Amino acid sequence: MNLQPVFDLVQICHLKGIKHAVISPGSRNAALTIAFARHPEIKCFSVPDERSAAFIALGLSLKSKTPTVLICTSGSAALNYAPAVAEAYFNQVPLLILSADRPPEWIGQRDGQTIYQKNLFGKHAKQSFDFPSLLEGEESIKQGYQMINDAIDTCLADGQGPVHINIPFREPFYPTSSDNFDYNMSLAIPGRTPDISVERKQNLGELSQFKKILIVVGQEQKNMELNKMLSQISTEYQIPVVADIISNAHEVEGVISSQDVFLKGLENQNLQPDLLITIGLSVISKNLKLYLRKYRPKVHWHVRDEENAPDTYLSLTKHFKTDAAEFLTEAIQLLAQRDLQLGFFSAWQEINAKTKVHIKQFSTSAFSDFGCYKKVMAALPSGSDLHLANSMAVRYANVIGLTAAQDIEVYGNRGTSGIDGSNSTAVGTALMTDKSTFLLTGDMAFLYDRNAFWHNHLPDNLSIVVFNNHGGGIFRMIDGPSRQPELEEFFETRQLNDAKLLAQEYGFEYLPCLSEKELDQNLKTFVKSGKRKILEIFTDAEESKQAYKELFRNLPK
Amino acid sequence: MNLQPVFDLVQICHLKGIKHAVISPGSRNAALTIAFARHPEIKCFSVPDERSAAFIALGLSLKSKTPTVLICTSGSAALNYAPAVAEAYFNQVPLLILSADRPPEWIGQRDGQTIYQKNLFGKHAKQSFDFPSLLEGEESIKQGYQMINDAIDTCLADGQGPVHINIPFREPFYPTSSDNFDYNMSLAIPGRTPDISVERKQNLGELSQFKKILIVVGQEQKNMELNKMLSQISTEYQIPVVADIISNAHEVEGVISSQDVFLKGLENQNLQPDLLITIGLSVISKNLKLYLRKYRPKVHWHVRDEENAPDTYLSLTKHFKTDAAEFLTEAIQLLAQRDLQLGFFSAWQEINAKTKVHIKQFSTSAFSDFGCYKKVMAALPSGSDLHLANSMAVRYANVIGLTAAQDIEVYGNRGTSGIDGSNSTAVGTALMTDKSTFLLTGDMAFLYDRNAFWHNHLPDNLSIVVFNNHGGGIFRMIDGPSRQPELEEFFETRQLNDAKLLAQEYGFEYLPCLSEKELDQNLKTFVKSGKRKILEIFTDAEESKQAYKELFRNLPK
Repeated sequence: MNLQPVFDLVQICHLKGIKHAVISPGSRNAALTIAFARHPEIKCFSVPDERSAAFIALGLSLKSKTPTVLICTSGSAALNYAPAVAEAYFNQVPLLILSADRPPEWIGQRDGQTIYQKNLFGKHAKQSFDFPSLLEGEESIKQGYQMINDAIDTCLADGQGPVHINIPFREPFYPTSSDNFDYNMSLAIPGRTPDISVERKQNLGELSQFKKILIVVGQEQKNMELNKMLSQISTEYQIPVVADIISNAHEVEGVISSQDVFLKGLENQNLQPDLLITIGLSVISKNLKLYLRKYRPKVHWHVRDEENAPDTYLSLTKHFKTDAAEFLTEAIQLLAQRDLQLGFFSAWQEINAKTKVHIKQFSTSAFSDFGCYKKVMAALPSGSDLHLANSMAVRYANVIGLTAAQDIEVYGNRGTSGIDGSNSTAVGTALMTDKSTFLLTGDMAFLYDRNAFWHNHLPDNLSIVVFNNHGGGIFRMIDGPSRQPELEEFFETRQLNDAKLLAQEYGFEYLPCLSEKELDQNLKTFVKSGKRKILEIFTDAEESKQAYKELFRNLPK
Repeated sequence: MNLQPVFDLVQICHLKGIKHAVISPGSRNAALTIAFARHPEIKCFSVPDERSAAFIALGLSLKSKTPTVLICTSGSAALNYAPAVAEAYFNQVPLLILSADRPPEWIGQRDGQTIYQKNLFGKHAKQSFDFPSLLEGEESIKQGYQMINDAIDTCLADGQGPVHINIPFREPFYPTSSDNFDYNMSLAIPGRTPDISVERKQNLGELSQFKKILIVVGQEQKNMELNKMLSQISTEYQIPVVADIISNAHEVEGVISSQDVFLKGLENQNLQPDLLITIGLSVISKNLKLYLRKYRPKVHWHVRDEENAPDTYLSLTKHFKTDAAEFLTEAIQLLAQRDLQLGFFSAWQEINAKTKVHIKQFSTSAFSDFGCYKKVMAALPSGSDLHLANSMAVRYANVIGLTAAQDIEVYGNRGTSGIDGSNSTAVGTALMTDKSTFLLTGDMAFLYDRNAFWHNHLPDNLSIVVFNNHGGGIFRMIDGPSRQPELEEFFETRQLNDAKLLAQEYGFEYLPCLSEKELDQNLKTFVKSGKRKILEIFTDAEESKQAYKELFRNLPK
């Protein structure tokens, strides 16, 4: 068996900057497994459940900012990647998926582990490549190398994302001891790096015409340069900068962060902008979306190097297909020559400041989720990473917010906002850093993705807070489902499990908390680094709901 | 909010024979959840993990022989159905998938839980319907009803399988107490039940021309009528009938069942047929496939009511698009007038009989997987159901076989042969019967799908044997991977977990076996009905491999 072309292919990946691969076991993918596992510069992780494998890869890419390779066998294996692939697509995280397949003549012939793998991820892969029946003949080998090159380029081009390569393999799958192959150190990257022409319509002359400019920052990885510019824009040019917790803009001076509270049901135009500038990806705050869809800006500019701009506020006017920092650098020149928007700016600042005080001072006697999130977030050691699961975790954390001094970087799967892979993604980011990584999650998301821990790579710098109210508490929060007789069985999905046995099974130190006193005691141990830990907080769903509702009563105006 | 059209839609499902729905929690799908959960004649199950939910639904359909409805929210939820949908497609099991979606104007606008859901399952759904933006205006309501009707017809038409309906919902999602709606008992099924014209080319005149006829039965649910005819064909007309364990043909008199053993490496034409007749779905035995691909029949007829016939043996001549029982009824008339194929028949019978004795008498001193499978299968109570996980479980069981007297019905996900949903499918079939259901599985498949048990519907008639050799033992069996240095980490995927804590978590009685003596003792308790149990057998991967290899040495010729 001639494995040399597969080794060359892996060497091309290395030359193009690939550093990590997550491999799920199989025979059809054996040649890929062997060639990646033996490469001295590519670190490989073996994860048996492909669903978890893909979310772990997502975490690795998020943190390393390079495409992670995913390798699986033929059949339904690659379908288990689909949730993470969609997440990566909408969250613009680069993944290079290499699925092994039968050769074309066996598709649809009722052979084992054979499905229709071509174009498996549909619109959720940026591009899908069908390898030539691999490694047979010089022409198809050359074509294969070119495809790997193009695939990695596409992964990394504007609006990064997942790319799928489907590779047919014929038997035999395994080399014998007499087969020879190695990494060709003199191999060159194949030519034709596509020359992506980015439209940089830096025509910002109009900027000075607008009296009320608002900047909304969507999800962004931590970016000090960007935050510095946003601080200047906010403090010197008096432009409100609104950002959710996942925007990683909590170090921006004067950043507006309590919008999901003070915009709830707000019925006046005081905060309506003339020009809305959006950067980053998605926004958590539903109340911000509802307010800006009702009190729409005259003009909305979306700034991001990506193919298609979303029209989140039904008012998109222009798409600046460019890097936000470059855009803001030019914008700052023009803003300097412009009148300050004092009233508009102070309207946002005042209501935000009052709401922050209201949230800070708010307390109930109950042992509620909100109170516990507040304590946990205040206790996080500075310089750590924070991963937020979906549903209530990301919402509570967003309302509570972080301070600049905490110096915490925030992650969350907000590409598709599914509950399906938060544990796995947190495992992935934790594997890529020495920092302490904290995951805050509800019991549903936590138990859904329990296979995130079923492998031999569990890091000790991952600690998890499980807020266990024995069901999907978000449904109790919403008026509609909470009034249905199906609430507990079909919406909340009452479930009786907890994290204790899981902690035992996967070697987490386990700290259960049934009262405020226990939480205070255990938190001290929990935030210390050393060994992976689970802090499980048992709250009552109904009490937590009442406490959260109370927060929204008598809001400052 | 007018829920009446959704209630009517559910009533149409009821009128068309739908009896079960598996619902995963969400808001976007609230109207569907409420209307299904409240219907007095449709039993609903709430399962939070959509991947497990879909495999459980597959099990419900297998057993009830009616389409099970799957209901999920928007976003990545439906992607988690994909592995089970592919399985259902290739295994021809009816599923009706109702995914809730955002209305079209919000797709691609970076709203939460929004992906591209149209045609989500690609070629693995028999058909994909896009509902009109539902329940708004009489015309679109009428169109919706027609779609539900057509979708269920398509589910059940020749070559049953999964059908996907994507249904957009606008807010509000939940009814208020003043909203009125109920099931309309006088509602009629909408017209246009498609008249499927089945080609019944019952032109079997040629049958008497063939001297050596071989019948191979692929995967089939238990069918007494069919088995009776096959017994007659085998005993009276001396035609060998070859069937794997998943063919449920173990009550056929004289059935050939040890083919995966005696055909291994067989290099003579004594068993080569002139005419091969195949019925049923896929075949486990790789050695049968290899033999018949090498010693091909002159003519191969495939008999099954399905759209496209597979060409598993590279020799397909004709596709009789008809029911196997009808075909055999006509064939029996013609076979009566034909000379008996004594030599060919006895060649198959003799080698099979000798091999059966060899397997029965074979024993090693080691506490090996093969020996344990033998003991477990002999101990199964008659009249029970047996579910076989993929990889080694189905292979061991196939070599060992079942007798007619055991009266056991066999299930296994051999549509795509993935390891991903065996637990869930067994939960599904067990929920549909009062019979004892036994699942035989390896540790990898078992732990992969552990969320199969994470819900409130776990039946007590499900008992599981976990053969735990701490990894995917199949890779050690195959020459290729067993010689690679990556064997343990990347192929077998050594994993240290067992079923003990899982048993505790989900209320299974737990019976661990570390020796033959313990197995003998625990088996007696295990096979008694009463409470759900897990029997976990710890074997050594290398010893099991050696024992299994030994079985194939000195085979009878």
